[in-house]
Amino acid sequence: MAKQLEGPILPFLRLDAAVALPKFRQVQDQLRMAILRGHLRAGARLPASRILAEELGLSRQTLVRVLENLKAEGYLEARQGAGTFVSQALPRQLPKPHFTLGESDASPRLSRIGALSRGVSAEIGQMEQKPFLPNQPALDRFPFAVWRKCWNAVTRSGRATMGYGDVAGELVLRQRIAEYLALHRRDSCDPEQIVITPGGHAAFTLAALALADPGDGIWFEDPGPVTTSNLFRTLGLHLCPVDVDSDGMDVAGAMARHPDARLAFVMPSRHHPLGVTLSLPRRLALLEWARANDAWIIEDDYDSEFRYDGAPLPSMRSVDSHDRIIYAGSFSKALYPGIRVGYLVLPPQLVGAFRNLSGLIHRSVPVETQLALAEFIGGGHFASHLRRMRGLYAERREAFQEAGRTALAGLARVDCSESGLNALAWLEGSRGDRAVHRAVLDAGLQCYPLSDYTIATRRPGALILGYAGVPAERMKPYLGRLAEALSQP
Amino acid sequence: MAKQLEGPILPFLRLDAAVALPKFRQVQDQLRMAILRGHLRAGARLPASRILAEELGLSRQTLVRVLENLKAEGYLEARQGAGTFVSQALPRQLPKPHFTLGESDASPRLSRIGALSRGVSAEIGQMEQKPFLPNQPALDRFPFAVWRKCWNAVTRSGRATMGYGDVAGELVLRQRIAEYLALHRRDSCDPEQIVITPGGHAAFTLAALALADPGDGIWFEDPGPVTTSNLFRTLGLHLCPVDVDSDGMDVAGAMARHPDARLAFVMPSRHHPLGVTLSLPRRLALLEWARANDAWIIEDDYDSEFRYDGAPLPSMRSVDSHDRIIYAGSFSKALYPGIRVGYLVLPPQLVGAFRNLSGLIHRSVPVETQLALAEFIGGGHFASHLRRMRGLYAERREAFQEAGRTALAGLARVDCSESGLNALAWLEGSRGDRAVHRAVLDAGLQCYPLSDYTIATRRPGALILGYAGVPAERMKPYLGRLAEALSQP
Repeated sequence: MAKQLEGPILPFLRLDAAVALPKFRQVQDQLRMAILRGHLRAGARLPASRILAEELGLSRQTLVRVLENLKAEGYLEARQGAGTFVSQALPRQLPKPHFTLGESDASPRLSRIGALSRGVSAEIGQMEQKPFLPNQPALDRFPFAVWRKCWNAVTRSGRATMGYGDVAGELVLRQRIAEYLALHRRDSCDPEQIVITPGGHAAFTLAALALADPGDGIWFEDPGPVTTSNLFRTLGLHLCPVDVDSDGMDVAGAMARHPDARLAFVMPSRHHPLGVTLSLPRRLALLEWARANDAWIIEDDYDSEFRYDGAPLPSMRSVDSHDRIIYAGSFSKALYPGIRVGYLVLPPQLVGAFRNLSGLIHRSVPVETQLALAEFIGGGHFASHLRRMRGLYAERREAFQEAGRTALAGLARVDCSESGLNALAWLEGSRGDRAVHRAVLDAGLQCYPLSDYTIATRRPGALILGYAGVPAERMKPYLGRLAEALSQP
Repeated sequence: MAKQLEGPILPFLRLDAAVALPKFRQVQDQLRMAILRGHLRAGARLPASRILAEELGLSRQTLVRVLENLKAEGYLEARQGAGTFVSQALPRQLPKPHFTLGESDASPRLSRIGALSRGVSAEIGQMEQKPFLPNQPALDRFPFAVWRKCWNAVTRSGRATMGYGDVAGELVLRQRIAEYLALHRRDSCDPEQIVITPGGHAAFTLAALALADPGDGIWFEDPGPVTTSNLFRTLGLHLCPVDVDSDGMDVAGAMARHPDARLAFVMPSRHHPLGVTLSLPRRLALLEWARANDAWIIEDDYDSEFRYDGAPLPSMRSVDSHDRIIYAGSFSKALYPGIRVGYLVLPPQLVGAFRNLSGLIHRSVPVETQLALAEFIGGGHFASHLRRMRGLYAERREAFQEAGRTALAGLARVDCSESGLNALAWLEGSRGDRAVHRAVLDAGLQCYPLSDYTIATRRPGALILGYAGVPAERMKPYLGRLAEALSQP
């Protein structure tokens, strides 16, 4: 027969008027904790609810409610006519709950991907919004009022945007994207070839998972965007760095050194960060390699929207007659990063697998955002925003170039490619770009050192500077400040 | 010396007034296509722009523009004083572009994951919105006007919602979620332990990728949600089906048969679709197994918000003193599926790896949605919506149960568990639930056959019926229609 607990009862029960929790919750939490901590052992009988209520100065109903809840949770059990007991089914030794945060376990058991994840930094976007932060569109010029109008228009009816939606993305958005690609990228596709993803990186992830097994090689331009190379490396792919020259990716070199790669990741429209364009002969050679080796090409159509010298070049996909290209686009630069919408245009034979995999790992993308975006594109706001931004960025590029040549003379050579949002400043002298980078941050400006983007091939030091987010009239003073930072010993 | 092309020139150039494209674009596209198709060979000289312009009835400026564009794209080249030529750098044999959609290649080369993806169906959410569609909250009762107000309030300033945001999710939303969990799930955590994901499935994907290698075992309740088992299987995990009885997952059976699994996926609050709760002794046994075997538990806190009999049970994580639980939640049922926001609560030692991996594969979740959601929770709308829905669903459950007992007598036994959005109808007689399912669809209703959820253990036939989306006064006629479908031979 279990011993009954006697009063001054349950020393661990203490009501605290200063605590915001209702009394019954305090008693309930404390009783539960007392059982978990072993103060109340399995089989112990509790005092009658009437006695407990008196002890604690609470109503009997309150105590009955507490005991009923703890019975429902399995901590207590009632025995007919005998009262309430700590459940016999509980193990003798109970674990001790604790709620501390800290790296208690230095090396938890992780998968290969999990272990690789520990070593990379993914703190993109945590960058401070300081002048010359790379990859920044002019967020203050985005027609946010129009965007809000589109969002409000499509959510007015409510119901339409509330379900999961199509796993490949809403058809109306896929239609608008297909029209945009046909008109601006000279690239016809069927909306059925498009899969909408929660951002560009999710699109790359989908392609990597569906097309390459761990250990498979992927051609990757060196230098190249570090978050993207980190992504592929972390997913277990074997990163094959490929040189980049003024004609873009060195396709012949890659064929000689890594013929068996399964994937090629390439930015033909505008290489990031060097700003070069992949030449037509190399595009065709790359396509031919992919066909002959049953490999796939991920075309990241990076910054293709912003070309200041002539019309944007057609996408590489538009000359792909072998159906080897997975075309990836996103709205992070053309609209704003926080929108988190990307997409893939797929060769027909891949549509089924990608659609299913995307449905499994993402299900879908916020339907209200998709419909608002379709409305934004369909209403002509996307095209006119791009046109305005092309003009604005061209102006800012011009101002950066002009002021930069003077301000940075003898310190760095300014290199604005004919497209994109960023420039390069190739450092004169022997100081490494990483050291200079710290000086730039200390001066209240932002930039990335080119060295952070290099994989195997070392290059002369350079800073990647974003000009698109900086008003033209601010270029001169900011570049003056940059020059000061660069001329520090 | 390259032969000059003579007029009636370029038979493949044909302007079409009926085509919406501007003339220069028509000429440009057709010239490009002529080169790609081999009608114009590498090295061929083009007629002077003046002659071409006359031929086509266009201005000379237009032709100059076309030729300049094609030079920029690499199709043409100018030779000083000699005119314009098809680029010599192009290969002799060019690929033929085509734009047809169809499964031209029956078995493209895919990864293991890609190949598995072809075989599954991910067409969730494509289900027709018919009465009794399972897992449907009462979307028409969601306070969409309040939601729009929250969205408009946080996007008023524009700029704040436009960047990538925090890779782990906006801090303010993580704080609101931590408060909700503390208050409603009796589960204290630090907001730093939370990672926001684009939906619940993205959260499971993150956990599976970070914690298990291909081939690793995962305990999975049998029956269990088919899209989730498809996800784990497609990611290459070895699915270990575990029986479910009235106390939930058969932990002892799983320990005996699959002791070496790396993961356990469990729905302790409310098993889907059986509706049972994992007992406290089994929760503790499961935690002890995970501790002893260095395994991890994914707690899917499925439908924990909707319990009609007593308060919601505390989460399993709240008694985890070994830091083995990855707690997964989403807003798909509590708010609406289209919102696409989920989250994980992680043991401290996993935070770093998950944060990095999430940043790589998702970067972040739409910032405006996150901030609107934080506003919605912080303003008390979430708690009061849940309270209202609990009342509404309890009423609908009652109506379903009462009408169902009469209408389905002799056809099926109605089984409404004390929580969730769905009921089970266990079929009498020998007809399989898949056959009955088709009859139900033909009757203009929806349901899922239990057989679609079973993995290894066959059970008696049953239909999963969603009652939460059906008004109480419609239960009787719909159940009458269901009875008719069930009584067909």
